[in-house]
Amino acid sequence: MTHPPARLQLRIHFGDAMFGPGKARLLELIRDHGSISAAGRAMDMSYKRAWGLVEEMNAAFHTPLVASARGGPGGGGATVTEAGLVALAHYRAIEAQATAAALPDITALQAMLKPG
Amino acid sequence: MTHPPARLQLRIHFGDAMFGPGKARLLELIRDHGSISAAGRAMDMSYKRAWGLVEEMNAAFHTPLVASARGGPGGGGATVTEAGLVALAHYRAIEAQATAAALPDITALQAMLKPG
Repeated sequence: MTHPPARLQLRIHFGDAMFGPGKARLLELIRDHGSISAAGRAMDMSYKRAWGLVEEMNAAFHTPLVASARGGPGGGGATVTEAGLVALAHYRAIEAQATAAALPDITALQAMLKPG
Repeated sequence: MTHPPARLQLRIHFGDAMFGPGKARLLELIRDHGSISAAGRAMDMSYKRAWGLVEEMNAAFHTPLVASARGGPGGGGATVTEAGLVALAHYRAIEAQATAAALPDITALQAMLKPG
């Protein structure tokens, strides 16, 4: 009879650039694993796709978000830069603020749904 | 040198059910056109896909969001119910509140991007 908690998934479009949950999660996993390939694996994402997202982020921002030695699927090592950590913190803050501010309407919408 | 305004795109997950920009836009277009097929066409969405989204919404909510006479691609006519208008209003309010609350962090993230 109860609903699972509602969850906001949030993409921010800046003209051609986009920042959303996949890039945020990838940054967190690179930070935790020290490797783009390991981060991609942890998301069931191909090495090629993980690299593509990193290149997209690094091209879009003034300062690269990820610093890496391109080392092939086996590694090379990667770190999230200070700018990357700041961008990630802004994204998580946006999520938290958005969810808190919209909670009454989220709850009201959820109450219109059949039990999940 | 200036950025286009940032835009939040927001999906709300309620366990298995999801409400996001596609369903909100479809409801608005059904309201304006009085037809699921015309609304789908206005979104470059197939008739089958538009009907599928309507059936998904009607199944997920206590009260159907769209009332329609299934009339094939040619029509039959459809209206957004009172519950549908309320759900739509909640979604647009969630978007507006989320954007307003998160604006300082959205602006800070945008300032880190190269000009678009």
